[in-house]
This record gives sequence, structure tokens and C-alpha cells, in this order.
Amino acid sequence: MSNAELGAFLGQWLPRLEDEMHVVLHNEETAVAQHYGMLHYHMGWANEELKPQRYPSGKRIRPMLCLLACAEIGGDPVQAIPAATAIELLHNFSLIHDDIEDGDEVRRHRPTVWKLWGAPQAINVGDGLFALAFAALQRSRRYGVASRTTLRALDLFTQSCLALTEGQHLDMRFEQRATVRTEEYLRMIRGKTAALIGASAAIGAVVGGATEAQVEAFQSFGRAAGLAFQIQDDILGIWGDPAVTGKAAGNDILRRKKSLPILYTLNHKSIGEPFAALLSNQLDESNVALAIAYMNQAGARAYAEGIVQTHFDNSLAALKKVLGNRTEQSMLWALVDSLLHRQA
Amino acid sequence: MSNAELGAFLGQWLPRLEDEMHVVLHNEETAVAQHYGMLHYHMGWANEELKPQRYPSGKRIRPMLCLLACAEIGGDPVQAIPAATAIELLHNFSLIHDDIEDGDEVRRHRPTVWKLWGAPQAINVGDGLFALAFAALQRSRRYGVASRTTLRALDLFTQSCLALTEGQHLDMRFEQRATVRTEEYLRMIRGKTAALIGASAAIGAVVGGATEAQVEAFQSFGRAAGLAFQIQDDILGIWGDPAVTGKAAGNDILRRKKSLPILYTLNHKSIGEPFAALLSNQLDESNVALAIAYMNQAGARAYAEGIVQTHFDNSLAALKKVLGNRTEQSMLWALVDSLLHRQA
Repeated sequence: MSNAELGAFLGQWLPRLEDEMHVVLHNEETAVAQHYGMLHYHMGWANEELKPQRYPSGKRIRPMLCLLACAEIGGDPVQAIPAATAIELLHNFSLIHDDIEDGDEVRRHRPTVWKLWGAPQAINVGDGLFALAFAALQRSRRYGVASRTTLRALDLFTQSCLALTEGQHLDMRFEQRATVRTEEYLRMIRGKTAALIGASAAIGAVVGGATEAQVEAFQSFGRAAGLAFQIQDDILGIWGDPAVTGKAAGNDILRRKKSLPILYTLNHKSIGEPFAALLSNQLDESNVALAIAYMNQAGARAYAEGIVQTHFDNSLAALKKVLGNRTEQSMLWALVDSLLHRQA
Repeated sequence: MSNAELGAFLGQWLPRLEDEMHVVLHNEETAVAQHYGMLHYHMGWANEELKPQRYPSGKRIRPMLCLLACAEIGGDPVQAIPAATAIELLHNFSLIHDDIEDGDEVRRHRPTVWKLWGAPQAINVGDGLFALAFAALQRSRRYGVASRTTLRALDLFTQSCLALTEGQHLDMRFEQRATVRTEEYLRMIRGKTAALIGASAAIGAVVGGATEAQVEAFQSFGRAAGLAFQIQDDILGIWGDPAVTGKAAGNDILRRKKSLPILYTLNHKSIGEPFAALLSNQLDESNVALAIAYMNQAGARAYAEGIVQTHFDNSLAALKKVLGNRTEQSMLWALVDSLLHRQA
């Protein structure tokens, strides 16, 4: 029943989230209309001429976790709307800067902000969104959240911002290196992916009135789920069905992405060397197939699936600390479970 | 007497500020040592090999205004240390990103962060410092600041972050245009310079226990002082004594900087056209002298000095609303007055 319940919950709260994001990003001053226009473009609310138009947006996973955590702990989700908004804006800020840093020209099938308006303006647009994410969270008082609670949420929020930059720092450095140990990679995604997902659940719990021990459990739950999501993405980037993922078979091999299964194979005692030699060639369909054969031989898929399972289990165990017997019937777990089994 | 008093105050509190900045920017994790090392480099605490070494830092004007505003309103300056730290870190964050956006290769006589480590890492280092600035302010509770007070300070802080990005947006757009109206320029520096200086004074007052009306007066005082500082800088960029400013005579003309006196001359009914034609040439000493002659003829210096005087008067009037008769003997005014007359 929790999937139908989840659908109803999201149908009720996601429009409130969208409304709040629009309120926070609204500005009427003509002089700076282009600055805010570029933000609207990035959010999928405006076209390249900065005229209103709707485009597909992100999946809103982080704000959903925040709203659900608030509800599951017995809080009123409306009080978590400012925090959920802040989290989604922060995520979007990080995408603007990541696209510049990685030189990515396309995001959600549209040219990236830097590609259209240049890196200098795009850096500054990202900074504006960073500030607005904080502004969003600071609107909590209007929703009846106590000052102490808001400050606690801000603490978690700021720590996750910092963790994002640590993760991104490592990600960029790893790109420059021939190989990276799997533990180093896991440290990187703890910062780049897991920290904000952990904070999303933790902040929702804080707003919902959780105790410190409960907040920690929600944070562990979210972090573990975030790690599982990321490594599952890594698996799909190699073995995913192109018909489902919308990407080429072995897409991450073609991009030489230092994802977990690739790093595991590169670090393999006997297969690492020929695999590295193969990746140093021009890559096409035939050697992608060979690369996948190497990876299967190394046991990279089983290894990565084992790690996903471990984090999946850890996530469930952490949530059980707070929700007990009703964990597996909860909307929060229904969300995590559906995300992890979406392309199984 | 207030100058000696000011010196003693700063001698007492600036070292506390430096200590707090070090605490906030401290991180022991080896994996991300380079991320924090680049921050230390930018702050003037480390050399290019990221080994500890001390370099001249900024003038700390903003945190001084914050600490002084707190003291003048009757608060304990120690409680304003986290806010003053946040303000100085925010200022430094904006310098890292501005240097990338403007392509500036040197800051305080040293290579800029992006010049040494590339724009992608530098963007991310700036983001880290942005997050740490918020983290600094959120340490207020450890200094006995009430939650409501901290949230009010955070509001002002976040609004000034946003204003910074608006100002920077306009500054970059103006660089692409042939000319800019003086009112447009003043709007730009309200965001880029005045907002944070206004917030510095206002936040200090908030922490010191000021009423809303007093906070507004401190903010007006700081904003007006910030505008006066900037336009005085503009005047010195044209007519400043190279022996005092350390820059070439007519430096801003050589750089074709769209500063207030230059924009005023460009917009002058009869002199604007020949002045623009002159600036479109290769610029050397002889036509810089001619450009200055044009500007004098247009009355650009008198115009800019008039604007400085207006903001100077507004700043004093705003401060008098709070400090009354003792305004001109206050340390806060001594600081503003000394900064505005430093190279007169």
C-alpha cells in the first residue's frame, strides 16, 4: 500500500515545493532580470531567450526524502517545505558549477548555462543560486519552525555544502590520475553524492522534531541510500540496458569514467594491466564488449552489486532504528526501494 | 582620541578574528588536504607548495566595521567574532570567483588560485569558502548569541551574498557594453561593494542587541560609506598620486575601466564623443594625459567628489541617528573618516 500512499503524498507536496522554489527565485528588478532569467533557464522554467517555458526538471529525490522524513517522524510536512526547497536549490547550484568544471555542454537535453552565457556569468549565476538556497532555508520561520530548529537544520545543510566541495575536489583530481583505489572512490562519493542525501533526510527529521539520535539515524539512512544509488548508477553505466537507460551500452567505458566497477577492474591483480591497456586505445563497440568481458572476468559486477547490497542493508537498518517494525511499510522506504530497483 | 582608542580596539580584536578564521578553515583529513591548502594559500597563510608561510592579507575593513558596530551599540565584541569572521570569509570567497570571472592573474602580488590550479579547482575552492563563511556565522551560539539573533544576522548576510552576485552580474555585463549610464554604475556598486559593507555594520549591530530601527541606520551608514569608498577609489584610479597608490598615473584609463569619472565623461554632451574616440586608440602616457584633460574639462572630478561627499554626509547622518552627539568621537566614525581621507 505504501507505493500508492507515496504517490498521494508526493502529489500533494511536490507542487508546494515547486511554488516555493518560484517564490524564492522571483525578482522583479529590471536591471538584474537577466541574472534571475539564467537561473530560471537552469531550473527548466525559461527558454534560451529567458521567456517562460516549461522543460523536464530533475527527479526531486532529495526534497522528497526531506519531506518524507519530516512526515515519518510525526512532523507536519509543510514545515519542511523551506528546507526541501533549499536542498533542491543547493543540488541545482552544484550542477551549474559542476557543468563548468567538467566542461559538460548539455544538461537535461539542453545547453548548459556556461555554454550559452559563458563561464564567468555561469559561475556567478551558480553563486546566486547558492545564496538563494540559504535564503530558502531561512524562510522556515514563516512556516512556524522554531529558531533553534532552523539553526540545527542550517548546520547540517552547511556541512553538506562543504562535503559537496570536498567530493568535487576529489572527483576532479581523480580525473587527472591513471588510477584510483576503490576506497578513495568511495570517499569521493561520500562527499559528492551521499552527504547531501543524508542531510536531506536528517534535515527533514530535525524539522519534524526528531531527537539527536533519531536525526543521526536518518542521516545514516540517507547516506547509505545515497551510496547505494550512486553505485547502482555505476553498474547501469556499464551493464544497463540502453533501451532503459537512454545511454549507449557500456557508456561509462566509452567516457573512461572512473566509476567503481571500472576502478575495481583497473586495480585487479591480473586483469588490471590488460584492461588499462585496452582503455588506452581508441574505443568502439568491439572493444567495449571486450572491456565488459574483462570486467565480468574480474568479478567487477558482483563486487559492485555486493557494495550496493551492503549499503542497501545499512540504509534499512538505520531507518529501522527510528521506524521499527513499520520501516518496510513506510513511504520513505518505498521511495528508496523503488529508486534502487527501478532498472533491475 | 578616537584614533588611539581605535588602534587599541583593533589591536585587541583583530588577532581574535585571525584565530577564528584559522579555526573555521582548519581540516585534518589527508584526503582533502589540497582543497583546504588552496584556501590557506588564498588567505595568505601558505605558499604555492601549500606549506605554511605568511603573506600580507586584506585590510579587514568589513570585519572591523562589524566588531565596532557591535561595540558602539553596547554589545560585547567577542559575540561578533563569528559574524566578523563570516564576513571576511565571504569577501574572500568573492575575490576567488571574481578573479576567475575577470581573468585576473595576480591578487595581492601573488598568482591567483585559478592561475595556479586552474579554473575548475578554483571555482570549487571558492564554493568551499562560501560554505565555510556560513559555517563561521553558525558558530555564534558558542559565543553566547541567541538563536533569533543569529538567524537575523544570517538573513542580512544571505541578502548581501545575493546582492554581491547581482552587482557582479552587472559589472560583467557592463564590460561588454560601449557605455553605461552613471545611475547604472551606481546600481552596480550598490550590489558589488556597498551591500556587504552595509551588512557588516548591520550584522555587528544585530549581535550587539540593536533594535530594528538601529540596525537599519547602521546598514544605511555602512552602505553609504561603501559607496563613498568605491567612488573615492575611482577618483584615485585617475588622479591618484602613483607614489601613494602604487599604480600608474591614470591607471584606470589605461585599463579602460568603466569607473564613475570615466562614465561621467563618456556621457558628457560635448566631450563624450572625442573622449570615447581617444579611449578607442592605443593608450600611452601622452594620450592618458589628454584623457585626463578631457575629464577635467567635463568636470568629472568635481562630479565624483560631489558624490563622495554626498555619501560621506549620508553615512554620518545615518550613524548620528544611533550614536547622536558622540558620533564624531566614535571609533566607528574614526575608521570611516580615516579610510576616506587616507590619500587626500
